[in-house]
Amino acid sequence: MPVTLPELTLPRAAQDLLFREARTANAFTDEAVTADEIRAVYDLVKYGPTAMNGQPLRITLITSDEARARLLPHMAEGNRAKTASAPVVAILASDADFHEFLPTVLPHAPHMRDVLHDAADNRTAMADLNAGLQIGYFIIGVRAAGLYAGPMTGFDGAGIDAEFHAGTNRKTLVVANIGHPTESSWFDRLPRLDDADVITVL
Amino acid sequence: MPVTLPELTLPRAAQDLLFREARTANAFTDEAVTADEIRAVYDLVKYGPTAMNGQPLRITLITSDEARARLLPHMAEGNRAKTASAPVVAILASDADFHEFLPTVLPHAPHMRDVLHDAADNRTAMADLNAGLQIGYFIIGVRAAGLYAGPMTGFDGAGIDAEFHAGTNRKTLVVANIGHPTESSWFDRLPRLDDADVITVL
Repeated sequence: MPVTLPELTLPRAAQDLLFREARTANAFTDEAVTADEIRAVYDLVKYGPTAMNGQPLRITLITSDEARARLLPHMAEGNRAKTASAPVVAILASDADFHEFLPTVLPHAPHMRDVLHDAADNRTAMADLNAGLQIGYFIIGVRAAGLYAGPMTGFDGAGIDAEFHAGTNRKTLVVANIGHPTESSWFDRLPRLDDADVITVL
Repeated sequence: MPVTLPELTLPRAAQDLLFREARTANAFTDEAVTADEIRAVYDLVKYGPTAMNGQPLRITLITSDEARARLLPHMAEGNRAKTASAPVVAILASDADFHEFLPTVLPHAPHMRDVLHDAADNRTAMADLNAGLQIGYFIIGVRAAGLYAGPMTGFDGAGIDAEFHAGTNRKTLVVANIGHPTESSWFDRLPRLDDADVITVL
Protein backbone atom coordinates (compact mmCIF):
# COMPACT_ATOMS: atom_id res chain seq x y z
CA MET A 1 0.00 0.00 0.00
CA PRO A 2 1.64 3.29 -1.06
CA VAL A 3 2.11 5.74 1.76
CA THR A 4 2.18 9.49 1.32
CA LEU A 5 5.26 10.80 3.08
CA PRO A 6 5.57 14.36 4.44
CA GLU A 7 6.87 17.04 2.07
CA LEU A 8 10.41 18.29 2.69
CA THR A 9 11.28 21.95 3.25
CA LEU A 10 13.88 21.99 0.46
CA PRO A 11 12.12 22.95 -2.80
CA ARG A 12 11.44 20.10 -5.19
CA ALA A 13 13.74 21.51 -7.90
CA ALA A 14 16.65 21.54 -5.44
CA GLN A 15 15.85 17.99 -4.33
CA ASP A 16 15.93 16.91 -7.96
CA LEU A 17 19.20 18.73 -8.66
CA LEU A 18 20.96 17.13 -5.70
CA PHE A 19 19.43 13.65 -5.58
CA ARG A 20 16.64 12.58 -7.94
CA GLU A 21 17.87 13.82 -11.30
CA ALA A 22 21.56 13.83 -10.34
CA ARG A 23 23.32 10.79 -11.69
CA THR A 24 26.76 9.27 -11.64
CA ALA A 25 28.41 10.36 -14.90
CA ASN A 26 30.58 7.96 -16.89
CA ALA A 27 31.56 10.07 -19.92
CA PHE A 28 32.31 13.76 -20.17
CA THR A 29 32.36 16.53 -22.76
CA ASP A 30 35.54 18.55 -23.14
CA GLU A 31 33.95 21.59 -21.48
CA ALA A 32 36.47 22.78 -18.90
CA VAL A 33 35.98 22.78 -15.13
CA THR A 34 38.18 25.25 -13.28
CA ALA A 35 39.84 24.77 -9.92
CA ASP A 36 37.81 27.77 -8.72
CA GLU A 37 34.58 25.92 -9.50
CA ILE A 38 35.74 23.18 -7.13
CA ARG A 39 36.87 25.76 -4.58
CA ALA A 40 33.32 27.15 -4.69
CA VAL A 41 32.01 23.64 -3.94
CA TYR A 42 34.40 23.38 -1.00
CA ASP A 43 33.43 26.84 0.20
CA LEU A 44 29.88 25.52 0.68
CA VAL A 45 30.41 21.95 1.87
CA LYS A 46 33.11 22.88 4.36
CA TYR A 47 30.24 23.72 6.72
CA GLY A 48 29.09 20.12 6.95
CA PRO A 49 29.66 18.74 10.46
CA THR A 50 32.58 16.51 11.49
CA ALA A 51 33.56 15.05 14.86
CA MET A 52 35.58 17.58 16.90
CA ASN A 53 35.27 19.80 13.82
CA GLY A 54 38.29 17.85 12.63
CA GLN A 55 37.62 18.17 8.84
CA PRO A 56 39.99 15.35 7.78
CA LEU A 57 39.09 15.43 4.05
CA ARG A 58 41.91 16.39 1.69
CA ILE A 59 41.36 16.95 -2.02
CA THR A 60 43.92 16.66 -4.80
CA LEU A 61 42.60 18.01 -8.10
CA ILE A 62 44.10 16.46 -11.19
CA THR A 63 43.93 19.04 -13.96
CA SER A 64 47.19 18.75 -15.90
CA ASP A 65 48.09 16.07 -18.43
CA GLU A 66 51.19 15.31 -16.42
CA ALA A 67 49.31 14.64 -13.18
CA ARG A 68 46.70 12.59 -15.05
CA ALA A 69 49.43 10.39 -16.50
CA ARG A 70 50.64 9.69 -12.96
CA LEU A 71 47.12 8.74 -11.82
CA LEU A 72 45.78 6.59 -14.65
CA PRO A 73 48.00 3.50 -14.14
CA HIS A 74 46.60 3.17 -10.59
CA MET A 75 42.96 3.17 -11.69
CA ALA A 76 41.16 -0.12 -12.33
CA GLU A 77 41.12 -0.86 -16.04
CA GLY A 78 37.37 -0.37 -16.26
CA ASN A 79 37.75 3.14 -14.84
CA ARG A 80 40.65 4.38 -16.99
CA ALA A 81 38.75 5.63 -20.04
CA LYS A 82 36.32 7.74 -18.02
CA THR A 83 39.06 9.06 -15.77
CA ALA A 84 41.02 9.99 -18.89
CA SER A 85 38.00 11.86 -20.31
CA ALA A 86 36.99 13.88 -17.22
CA PRO A 87 38.11 17.53 -17.24
CA VAL A 88 38.93 17.33 -13.52
CA VAL A 89 39.58 14.33 -11.31
CA ALA A 90 39.48 14.69 -7.53
CA ILE A 91 41.49 12.36 -5.31
CA LEU A 92 39.50 12.39 -2.06
CA ALA A 93 41.59 11.31 0.91
CA SER A 94 41.44 11.17 4.69
CA ASP A 95 44.28 12.79 6.62
CA ALA A 96 45.14 10.94 9.84
CA ASP A 97 47.19 13.99 10.80
CA PHE A 98 44.09 16.19 10.90
CA HIS A 99 44.73 16.69 14.62
CA GLU A 100 47.53 19.15 13.79
CA PHE A 101 44.82 21.69 12.94
CA LEU A 102 42.80 21.20 16.13
CA PRO A 103 44.24 24.24 17.94
CA THR A 104 42.80 26.30 15.05
CA VAL A 105 39.50 24.51 14.39
CA LEU A 106 38.69 23.52 17.98
CA PRO A 107 39.97 26.58 19.83
CA HIS A 108 38.16 25.78 23.10
CA ALA A 109 39.95 22.41 23.39
CA PRO A 110 43.38 22.80 21.77
CA HIS A 111 44.82 20.10 24.05
CA MET A 112 42.98 17.52 21.92
CA ARG A 113 45.84 17.78 19.47
CA ASP A 114 48.15 16.20 22.01
CA VAL A 115 45.57 13.67 23.16
CA LEU A 116 45.10 12.47 19.59
CA HIS A 117 48.81 12.66 18.81
CA ASP A 118 49.23 9.68 21.15
CA ALA A 119 46.24 7.75 19.76
CA ALA A 120 47.15 6.97 16.17
CA ASP A 121 44.62 4.14 15.74
CA ASN A 122 41.74 6.29 16.98
CA ARG A 123 42.90 9.09 14.73
CA THR A 124 42.92 6.88 11.65
CA ALA A 125 39.41 5.61 12.40
CA MET A 126 38.16 9.15 13.03
CA ALA A 127 39.80 10.43 9.86
CA ASP A 128 38.32 7.68 7.69
CA LEU A 129 34.78 7.98 9.06
CA ASN A 130 34.62 11.76 9.00
CA ALA A 131 36.31 12.07 5.61
CA GLY A 132 33.64 9.63 4.41
CA LEU A 133 30.91 12.00 5.64
CA GLN A 134 32.73 14.87 3.96
CA ILE A 135 32.94 12.96 0.67
CA GLY A 136 29.16 12.63 0.90
CA TYR A 137 28.88 16.41 1.39
CA PHE A 138 31.34 17.00 -1.46
CA ILE A 139 29.40 14.88 -3.97
CA ILE A 140 26.23 16.82 -3.07
CA GLY A 141 28.22 20.05 -3.47
CA VAL A 142 29.46 19.08 -6.94
CA ARG A 143 25.84 18.64 -7.93
CA ALA A 144 24.93 21.96 -6.30
CA ALA A 145 27.44 23.54 -8.69
CA GLY A 146 25.62 22.07 -11.68
CA LEU A 147 28.47 19.65 -12.27
CA TYR A 148 28.37 15.88 -12.41
CA ALA A 149 30.51 13.54 -10.33
CA GLY A 150 31.54 10.00 -11.07
CA PRO A 151 32.84 8.67 -7.75
CA MET A 152 34.89 5.46 -7.95
CA THR A 153 36.52 3.05 -5.53
CA GLY A 154 38.10 0.82 -8.18
CA PHE A 155 41.78 1.75 -7.93
CA ASP A 156 45.05 0.76 -6.28
CA GLY A 157 44.90 2.99 -3.23
CA ALA A 158 48.41 2.16 -2.04
CA GLY A 159 49.72 3.06 -5.49
CA ILE A 160 47.91 6.40 -5.54
CA ASP A 161 49.09 7.16 -2.01
CA ALA A 162 52.71 6.38 -2.90
CA GLU A 163 52.46 8.59 -5.98
CA PHE A 164 50.55 11.56 -4.54
CA HIS A 165 50.62 11.32 -0.73
CA ALA A 166 54.22 10.35 0.04
CA GLY A 167 55.47 11.70 3.36
CA THR A 168 51.94 12.29 4.68
CA ASN A 169 49.31 10.29 6.56
CA ARG A 170 46.76 10.72 3.78
CA LYS A 171 44.82 7.72 2.48
CA THR A 172 42.83 7.74 -0.75
CA LEU A 173 39.20 6.74 -0.15
CA VAL A 174 37.40 7.77 -3.36
CA VAL A 175 38.48 9.13 -6.74
CA ALA A 176 35.81 11.24 -8.43
CA ASN A 177 35.64 12.31 -12.05
CA ILE A 178 34.00 15.72 -12.35
CA GLY A 179 32.67 17.44 -15.43
CA HIS A 180 29.78 17.93 -17.81
CA PRO A 181 28.26 14.65 -19.01
CA THR A 182 27.79 13.51 -22.56
CA GLU A 183 24.36 12.30 -23.65
CA SER A 184 25.51 8.71 -23.44
CA SER A 185 26.87 9.15 -19.94
CA TRP A 186 24.14 7.28 -18.07
CA PHE A 187 23.49 3.75 -17.11
CA ASP A 188 19.91 2.95 -16.10
CA ARG A 189 19.05 4.01 -12.57
CA LEU A 190 19.64 1.03 -10.29
CA PRO A 191 17.08 0.00 -7.67
CA ARG A 192 17.21 1.48 -4.20
CA LEU A 193 16.42 -0.45 -1.03
CA ASP A 194 12.91 -0.13 0.40
CA ASP A 195 12.76 1.80 3.64
CA ALA A 196 11.57 -1.36 5.36
CA ASP A 197 14.95 -2.96 4.58
CA VAL A 198 16.89 0.01 5.96
CA ILE A 199 14.89 1.62 8.77
CA THR A 200 13.90 -0.06 12.04
CA VAL A 201 11.63 1.90 14.38
CA LEU A 202 11.89 1.12 18.08
CA MET B 1 43.48 38.74 -1.15
CA PRO B 2 39.81 37.73 -1.28
CA VAL B 3 38.86 35.83 -4.43
CA THR B 4 35.40 35.84 -5.94
CA LEU B 5 34.40 32.25 -6.52
CA PRO B 6 31.87 31.15 -9.17
CA GLU B 7 28.21 31.06 -8.17
CA LEU B 8 26.64 27.64 -7.64
CA THR B 9 23.53 26.45 -9.50
CA LEU B 10 21.70 25.58 -6.27
CA PRO B 11 19.77 28.67 -5.14
CA ARG B 12 21.29 30.57 -2.24
CA ALA B 13 18.37 29.86 0.11
CA ALA B 14 18.82 26.12 -0.43
CA GLN B 15 22.59 26.41 0.16
CA ASP B 16 21.86 28.19 3.42
CA LEU B 17 19.25 25.62 4.51
CA LEU B 18 21.61 22.70 3.92
CA PHE B 19 25.00 24.13 4.86
CA ARG B 20 25.46 27.76 5.88
CA GLU B 21 22.61 28.30 8.32
CA ALA B 22 22.24 24.65 9.24
CA ARG B 23 23.89 23.91 12.55
CA THR B 24 24.49 20.96 14.83
CA ALA B 25 21.74 21.10 17.45
CA ASN B 26 22.46 20.32 21.08
CA ALA B 27 19.06 20.88 22.72
CA PHE B 28 15.57 20.18 21.42
CA THR B 29 12.00 21.31 21.99
CA ASP B 30 9.40 18.66 22.71
CA GLU B 31 7.85 19.05 19.25
CA ALA B 32 7.44 15.54 17.88
CA VAL B 33 9.25 14.11 14.87
CA THR B 34 7.47 11.17 13.26
CA ALA B 35 9.05 8.09 11.75
CA ASP B 36 7.42 9.12 8.46
CA GLU B 37 9.36 12.39 8.51
CA ILE B 38 12.56 10.33 8.63
CA ARG B 39 11.23 7.96 5.95
CA ALA B 40 10.74 11.04 3.75
CA VAL B 41 14.40 11.95 4.35
CA TYR B 42 15.44 8.44 3.38
CA ASP B 43 13.17 8.53 0.33
CA LEU B 44 15.30 11.43 -0.97
CA VAL B 45 18.82 10.54 0.15
CA LYS B 46 18.56 6.92 -0.93
CA TYR B 47 19.49 8.20 -4.40
CA GLY B 48 22.97 9.24 -3.29
CA PRO B 49 25.63 7.07 -4.96
CA THR B 50 27.39 4.12 -3.30
CA ALA B 51 29.97 1.65 -4.63
CA MET B 52 28.26 -1.21 -6.50
CA ASN B 53 25.00 0.49 -5.47
CA GLY B 54 25.53 -1.43 -2.25
CA GLN B 55 23.69 0.98 0.10
CA PRO B 56 25.13 -0.41 3.36
CA LEU B 57 23.59 2.22 5.68
CA ARG B 58 21.10 0.91 8.24
CA ILE B 59 19.06 3.20 10.46
CA THR B 60 17.50 2.37 13.82
CA LEU B 61 15.13 5.09 14.99
CA ILE B 62 14.77 5.40 18.75
CA THR B 63 11.32 6.80 19.42
CA SER B 64 9.99 4.95 22.51
CA ASP B 65 10.98 5.54 26.12
CA GLU B 66 11.89 1.88 26.39
CA ALA B 67 14.32 1.96 23.46
CA ARG B 68 15.83 5.21 24.69
CA ALA B 69 16.49 3.67 28.10
CA ARG B 70 18.44 0.91 26.35
CA LEU B 71 20.53 3.42 24.40
CA LEU B 72 21.39 6.09 26.97
CA PRO B 73 23.83 4.05 29.11
CA HIS B 74 26.02 3.52 26.02
CA MET B 75 26.30 7.23 25.20
CA ALA B 76 29.26 9.25 26.49
CA GLU B 77 28.24 11.15 29.61
CA GLY B 78 28.53 14.49 27.81
CA ASN B 79 26.03 13.30 25.20
CA ARG B 80 23.37 11.79 27.48
CA ALA B 81 21.32 14.89 28.26
CA LYS B 82 20.93 15.92 24.64
CA THR B 83 20.19 12.36 23.54
CA ALA B 84 17.57 12.17 26.27
CA SER B 85 15.95 15.42 25.05
CA ALA B 86 15.81 14.65 21.31
CA PRO B 87 12.40 13.55 20.01
CA VAL B 88 14.06 10.99 17.72
CA VAL B 89 17.53 9.46 17.86
CA ALA B 90 18.92 7.66 14.82
CA ILE B 91 21.52 4.91 15.23
CA LEU B 92 23.38 5.03 11.92
CA ALA B 93 25.21 1.79 11.19
CA SER B 94 27.08 0.06 8.38
CA ASP B 95 25.92 -3.43 7.43
CA ALA B 96 28.79 -5.70 6.34
CA ASP B 97 26.13 -8.10 5.04
CA PHE B 98 24.94 -5.56 2.48
CA HIS B 99 26.03 -8.00 -0.24
CA GLU B 100 22.94 -10.11 0.42
CA PHE B 101 20.92 -7.45 -1.42
CA LEU B 102 23.23 -7.25 -4.46
CA PRO B 103 21.08 -9.53 -6.67
CA THR B 104 18.31 -6.94 -6.20
CA VAL B 105 20.28 -3.67 -6.31
CA LEU B 106 22.93 -4.71 -8.85
CA PRO B 107 20.82 -6.88 -11.18
CA HIS B 108 23.37 -6.89 -14.01
CA ALA B 109 26.04 -8.45 -11.75
CA PRO B 110 24.24 -10.63 -9.19
CA HIS B 111 27.30 -12.88 -8.90
CA MET B 112 28.97 -10.12 -6.87
CA ARG B 113 27.03 -11.40 -3.88
CA ASP B 114 29.05 -14.61 -3.94
CA VAL B 115 32.32 -12.82 -4.72
CA LEU B 116 31.86 -10.59 -1.67
CA HIS B 117 30.55 -13.42 0.48
CA ASP B 118 34.09 -14.83 0.41
CA ALA B 119 35.78 -11.45 1.05
CA ALA B 120 34.65 -10.43 4.52
CA ASP B 121 37.45 -7.89 5.10
CA ASN B 122 36.76 -6.10 1.81
CA ARG B 123 33.07 -6.11 2.63
CA THR B 124 33.60 -4.51 6.01
CA ALA B 125 35.79 -1.78 4.52
CA MET B 126 33.28 -1.15 1.71
CA ALA B 127 30.38 -1.06 4.17
CA ASP B 128 32.10 1.42 6.48
CA LEU B 129 33.22 3.80 3.72
CA ASN B 130 29.95 3.80 1.83
CA ALA B 131 27.80 4.00 4.94
CA GLY B 132 29.94 7.03 5.83
CA LEU B 133 29.04 8.67 2.53
CA GLN B 134 25.39 7.81 3.15
CA ILE B 135 25.51 9.33 6.64
CA GLY B 136 26.72 12.52 4.94
CA TYR B 137 23.73 12.36 2.57
CA PHE B 138 21.41 11.61 5.50
CA ILE B 139 22.53 14.63 7.54
CA ILE B 140 21.93 16.83 4.49
CA GLY B 141 18.52 15.17 4.07
CA VAL B 142 17.53 15.86 7.68
CA ARG B 143 18.26 19.52 7.00
CA ALA B 144 16.30 19.34 3.73
CA ALA B 145 13.32 18.28 5.86
CA GLY B 146 13.63 21.41 7.99
CA LEU B 147 14.85 19.35 10.91
CA TYR B 148 18.08 19.66 12.85
CA ALA B 149 20.59 16.88 13.43
CA GLY B 150 23.10 16.51 16.21
CA PRO B 151 25.48 13.80 14.99
CA MET B 152 27.73 12.25 17.65
CA THR B 153 30.55 9.75 17.78
CA GLY B 154 30.96 9.79 21.57
CA PHE B 155 29.48 6.44 22.57
CA ASP B 156 30.39 2.82 23.32
CA GLY B 157 29.85 1.34 19.87
CA ALA B 158 30.37 -2.25 20.99
CA GLY B 159 27.75 -1.69 23.69
CA ILE B 160 25.22 -0.27 21.25
CA ASP B 161 25.89 -3.08 18.79
CA ALA B 162 25.40 -5.74 21.48
CA GLU B 163 22.15 -4.09 22.56
CA PHE B 164 20.64 -3.28 19.15
CA HIS B 165 22.53 -5.23 16.47
CA ALA B 166 22.94 -8.70 18.01
CA GLY B 167 23.00 -11.47 15.43
CA THR B 168 23.85 -9.10 12.57
CA ASN B 169 26.98 -7.66 10.98
CA ARG B 170 25.90 -4.08 11.67
CA LYS B 171 28.33 -1.63 13.26
CA THR B 172 27.29 1.70 14.75
CA LEU B 173 29.20 4.59 13.16
CA VAL B 174 27.25 7.69 14.22
CA VAL B 175 24.33 8.39 16.54
CA ALA B 176 22.30 11.44 15.54
CA ASN B 177 19.79 13.34 17.63
CA ILE B 178 17.04 14.77 15.42
CA GLY B 179 14.44 17.37 16.24
CA HIS B 180 13.57 21.03 16.47
CA PRO B 181 16.19 23.09 18.29
CA THR B 182 15.68 25.31 21.29
CA GLU B 183 16.96 28.87 21.16
CA SER B 184 19.95 27.94 23.30
CA SER B 185 20.84 25.00 21.08
CA TRP B 186 23.88 26.51 19.39
CA PHE B 187 27.51 26.77 20.16
CA ASP B 188 29.44 29.39 18.19
CA ARG B 189 30.28 28.34 14.65
CA LEU B 190 33.77 26.83 14.72
CA PRO B 191 36.39 27.79 12.12
CA ARG B 192 36.64 25.89 8.87
CA LEU B 193 39.91 25.10 7.13
CA ASP B 194 41.02 27.41 4.33
CA ASP B 195 40.83 25.85 0.91
CA ALA B 196 44.61 26.15 0.65
CA ASP B 197 44.92 23.69 3.56
CA VAL B 198 42.56 21.19 1.94
CA ILE B 199 42.85 21.48 -1.86
CA THR B 200 46.00 20.77 -3.89
CA VAL B 201 45.83 21.50 -7.63
CA LEU B 202 48.13 19.47 -9.87
